[in-house]
Amino acid sequence: MVNQVQRGDGSWQSCKSDSSGASNSSESSKESSRSSTPVLDVDRSDRLRDKMRRRMESGDRWFSLEFFPPRTASGAVNLISRFDRMGTGGPLFIDITWHPAGDPGSDKETSSLMIASTAVNYCGLESILHLTCCNQTKEKISGYLAKAKHLGLKNIMALRGDPVGADWEEEEGGFNYATDLVKHIRSEFDDYFDICVAGYPTGHPEAESYEEDLRHLKEKVDAGADFIITQLFFRADTFLKFLDDCRAIGITCPILPGIFPIQGYQSLRQLVKLSKLEVPEEITRVIEPIKDNDAAIRNYGIKQAVEMCRVLLDSGKVPGLHFYTLNREVATMEVLRQLGLWIEDPRRPLPWAVSAHPKRKVEDVRPIFWASRPKSYIYRTQDWDEFPNGRWGNSSSPAFGELNDYYLFYLKSKSSKDALLKMWGDELMSEESVYEVFTCYITAQPNRSGHKVMCLPWNDEPLAPETNLLKDELEKVNRRGVLTINSQPNINGKPSTDPIAGWGPAGGYVFQKAYLEFFTSSENVNALLKVLKKYEPRVNYHIVNVHGRNLTNAPDMQPNAVTWGIFPGREIVQPTVVDPDSFMYWKDEAFALWIEQWAKLYEDESPSRMIIKYIHDNYFLVNLVDNDFPLESCLWKVIDDMFELLDATPEPKD
Amino acid sequence: MVNQVQRGDGSWQSCKSDSSGASNSSESSKESSRSSTPVLDVDRSDRLRDKMRRRMESGDRWFSLEFFPPRTASGAVNLISRFDRMGTGGPLFIDITWHPAGDPGSDKETSSLMIASTAVNYCGLESILHLTCCNQTKEKISGYLAKAKHLGLKNIMALRGDPVGADWEEEEGGFNYATDLVKHIRSEFDDYFDICVAGYPTGHPEAESYEEDLRHLKEKVDAGADFIITQLFFRADTFLKFLDDCRAIGITCPILPGIFPIQGYQSLRQLVKLSKLEVPEEITRVIEPIKDNDAAIRNYGIKQAVEMCRVLLDSGKVPGLHFYTLNREVATMEVLRQLGLWIEDPRRPLPWAVSAHPKRKVEDVRPIFWASRPKSYIYRTQDWDEFPNGRWGNSSSPAFGELNDYYLFYLKSKSSKDALLKMWGDELMSEESVYEVFTCYITAQPNRSGHKVMCLPWNDEPLAPETNLLKDELEKVNRRGVLTINSQPNINGKPSTDPIAGWGPAGGYVFQKAYLEFFTSSENVNALLKVLKKYEPRVNYHIVNVHGRNLTNAPDMQPNAVTWGIFPGREIVQPTVVDPDSFMYWKDEAFALWIEQWAKLYEDESPSRMIIKYIHDNYFLVNLVDNDFPLESCLWKVIDDMFELLDATPEPKD
Repeated sequence: MVNQVQRGDGSWQSCKSDSSGASNSSESSKESSRSSTPVLDVDRSDRLRDKMRRRMESGDRWFSLEFFPPRTASGAVNLISRFDRMGTGGPLFIDITWHPAGDPGSDKETSSLMIASTAVNYCGLESILHLTCCNQTKEKISGYLAKAKHLGLKNIMALRGDPVGADWEEEEGGFNYATDLVKHIRSEFDDYFDICVAGYPTGHPEAESYEEDLRHLKEKVDAGADFIITQLFFRADTFLKFLDDCRAIGITCPILPGIFPIQGYQSLRQLVKLSKLEVPEEITRVIEPIKDNDAAIRNYGIKQAVEMCRVLLDSGKVPGLHFYTLNREVATMEVLRQLGLWIEDPRRPLPWAVSAHPKRKVEDVRPIFWASRPKSYIYRTQDWDEFPNGRWGNSSSPAFGELNDYYLFYLKSKSSKDALLKMWGDELMSEESVYEVFTCYITAQPNRSGHKVMCLPWNDEPLAPETNLLKDELEKVNRRGVLTINSQPNINGKPSTDPIAGWGPAGGYVFQKAYLEFFTSSENVNALLKVLKKYEPRVNYHIVNVHGRNLTNAPDMQPNAVTWGIFPGREIVQPTVVDPDSFMYWKDEAFALWIEQWAKLYEDESPSRMIIKYIHDNYFLVNLVDNDFPLESCLWKVIDDMFELLDATPEPKD
Repeated sequence: MVNQVQRGDGSWQSCKSDSSGASNSSESSKESSRSSTPVLDVDRSDRLRDKMRRRMESGDRWFSLEFFPPRTASGAVNLISRFDRMGTGGPLFIDITWHPAGDPGSDKETSSLMIASTAVNYCGLESILHLTCCNQTKEKISGYLAKAKHLGLKNIMALRGDPVGADWEEEEGGFNYATDLVKHIRSEFDDYFDICVAGYPTGHPEAESYEEDLRHLKEKVDAGADFIITQLFFRADTFLKFLDDCRAIGITCPILPGIFPIQGYQSLRQLVKLSKLEVPEEITRVIEPIKDNDAAIRNYGIKQAVEMCRVLLDSGKVPGLHFYTLNREVATMEVLRQLGLWIEDPRRPLPWAVSAHPKRKVEDVRPIFWASRPKSYIYRTQDWDEFPNGRWGNSSSPAFGELNDYYLFYLKSKSSKDALLKMWGDELMSEESVYEVFTCYITAQPNRSGHKVMCLPWNDEPLAPETNLLKDELEKVNRRGVLTINSQPNINGKPSTDPIAGWGPAGGYVFQKAYLEFFTSSENVNALLKVLKKYEPRVNYHIVNVHGRNLTNAPDMQPNAVTWGIFPGREIVQPTVVDPDSFMYWKDEAFALWIEQWAKLYEDESPSRMIIKYIHDNYFLVNLVDNDFPLESCLWKVIDDMFELLDATPEPKD
């Protein structure tokens, strides 16, 4: 029996052996843990060197971005935001440098380890953690590596680092060279990590000779490194010669050039001092005359980098470009745009931000409630061993961790307290003041003190494009005290490439049930419940207050699919559900945000604070789903009917 | 925190304790085995007494059917077909009687155990196995029970049975009464089985008195029985009095009346002799005059049963009716129809026939290939420990058992060898003769010897209604040697109540990708492959021959969803897939059926046999999926293009 499968393009691949029809009855028991279908994105399951290999085979170029750890907490918040923004351009990986003086392996928010971990877990980026080894014990290094692995990091750049002190002595049994570190990683962790090492296109400054340094590089690779990233250089042919020389001595792994767009006169001088590189004459000739003109230097730097990269790419020997960003965005993005490598129109593999922790690689379904707070969701589920795939399932829904620190670092609002007071009102007069804030957020119109409301406690960004489609209806209801914090329109089979609603591979169709989630008063809820009786079973609802009193008509408390997609050659993907159990965990967070982010802006016992507290204590959180997705959403009519009923009913006397 | 959830109808139910938002971090690890969502049919997971309880609460009446084991193998085949037919009417359960003389616990196809097991596994019917205990050792009884449990049976009717010999002595430590059996079952198997016991509305013939027999019945129930089914009776008030008397002495479980529609004069006399019941005068008065007129007696029997059942149902104390069918259909179905209890328009919970084995209760996805051979699929997967739920998944697809006995009893064709020869041709002239047979099957037109082709080796029934929609296109292609054995049209969101394509709960929408599966010559396949290049990636294909040589463009060999449904308040259901791995198991069966069911009708070495063998050895089995389900299926055009290419190409010279 032929075990090979011929692909449609004529190439053959081996089949799995039992698909040739073997039916040994001793193997007929189904394994108890089925792999999920790796549905949408091979990149989620492949390791970095395999992602590279696939791209090299298909000729798709890539880029990567290097960052250094920040010095301050707010610097870290900004850097994470930068990761989110630059992540949309489609880097194959990013890397984070390691500096012993900065406590790089600690739990501080600014450490290399925490920054790299955040990039993986919260920004969904494949990340390499640099690691220097000189002056470190093997135990210490193993400790860092174990911690990195636990946090979800899978790639290490193994470096010697700068020895402490002007002279340096080789230590017996210590790490003397990066090669020792590479060997150590392979010995302790087998093939778990992808390992990358540094190459120096003009030789390491401390090497005896260029040839010696090449031999040293080969040693590092032979010890178990998967690829090389080089120091920066100023001429394409500097790198290309180095590349040829590497190949000539038998280094076969990918070699990625390090690109540094010149960003300023002083920064170039500083760089030259540190790297001991020479700036070629053709560059100094241009820069010297304009050394006081930062903008001109930046433009030149971009132009020079683009030209050099084009030569590198055209050589056919350079599969990817590695950028030293110095934690800045503009120049790097501009170079990549001009090279056509920056993805302008990123397609989402799923409607929500994917985490890159290996244990989450098959995760493909989440409750909709955290749509605007994906980092919170990742945080609260970080202790799970397994993640839902295919279906959300039911009764064994696990507990969510507490969001026990509302100062959880990366979930802090990007806005200062002053900015928030301006947006949300430094003095609230009544509940209607709060309604106005929501309305201004929805409409993007300035509030009564002339400030735009750019965020709310539940949404740190302005309205998403998809939600913007519902702007008019949302405005109407918010004005009257239906304070919406999450919604989606119904969608009946739009192409998966739709710029607003699309996700997943091309050639598919995406669907949604209409969804609305809002805070509202208990008076409104009483009327709503009467109205909802007429809409059963078309509308599913769940209504809860901060004390946990809740009502739902979810059949058997089962999760309800609200987003799904059909793709060629794939099983169905159902990435969001409305789950009654999870809603009870979400509500804790949703109610607490009133206090933690809004009430606490005001003085204790102030009227403003009491107003927010009143809402927190007395309002209900409601979610509504319109199951009849091919029809126009009836949820707005449900709200209309509720208001009609309220308007018709005289005020109760209690 | 309030732990109760108020349902939309105002009733309260307890929430699962951790859904009130508890977030004890020591419980934050997700359990490794998630329950699936019990999506569509609570009946699949509830035990029988709970199904009854739900119906009694909602006031929905039910009926059940009793059968006796057949004496011959062909009687068994007929009985299984009867189960399939009568199963569509919606019995809550069926039961199978036990007769020690008939080897009822053996592996013979005619045994009570095997018949009951087949009803559960292959016909998807909740089934009760009768079990008599007198003259049996405890070991023997435990053996039967263990075997029943293993086979998937969950309900036992515990009976004493008829002691051997005219006199009967109580055995020390043996089973003297049904009560002993009930106790034994509870003691050995705890609460695994639902247990039912017999009641006698006029008292057991051997009881000392009616009151004594009532006390005895209470003893049986107190020993652990869940409900009672009664002996037949001729007057409604006989049963209703008995019911009141049972309640009066404290029997609270459901008591179901046994109904016997009189079917013939002799059968009534025989019954009276066995049961020692008296036929009331008002019945004999009618029957005697017409005792030679079977039709008249049957009509009277139906009328009498309907009237009696109406009185029983109107009493409000009778939740369900139990029918002694004597293995016949017509009278019972007519009575049930007149009572409005027979489901005329059965809704399918899933597009394929569900098995009732408890280990299969969450099974909700299968490969499409066995659509016409669900019993074969159940047989070949009977050793699996777990069944796919939600997604089919991939690489850990388990092996399928061999269909190692093409004489597998219940998969035998219902048609005799002679009938098959008439349909498929007692002499085949060429491959075109075979094409004609397929064409006649599709069109339901008689073949050239005037016989209708009612089945094919892969389809023991005529075309399903859904396939009938495609009749014209199917005819065209079969004529030219594209021998179709499975197909479905594309469906883009029909209501789940659609009479032809619908399945699952009401209020939902069902979808399908167009699918076509056929045998065809290798010449055709060569042309087809060229044509298919133009249709990538819209069309997925898999092409295989009997030797296992196969070609597919399935991305990463992943399963492709071809049927799915969206329902209110539920996660997505995706009940059929086209799976490349399973196709390789299916093809063994599909190719073998040429030989086992068709070729072997002819003499060894005869030209007819050689023709079938030639097809078996040289044709390919092809499956095609059109991924673009919102558009009209392109698969017919694919076939057209293939023929166009063939017609345009001169014959090759080999």
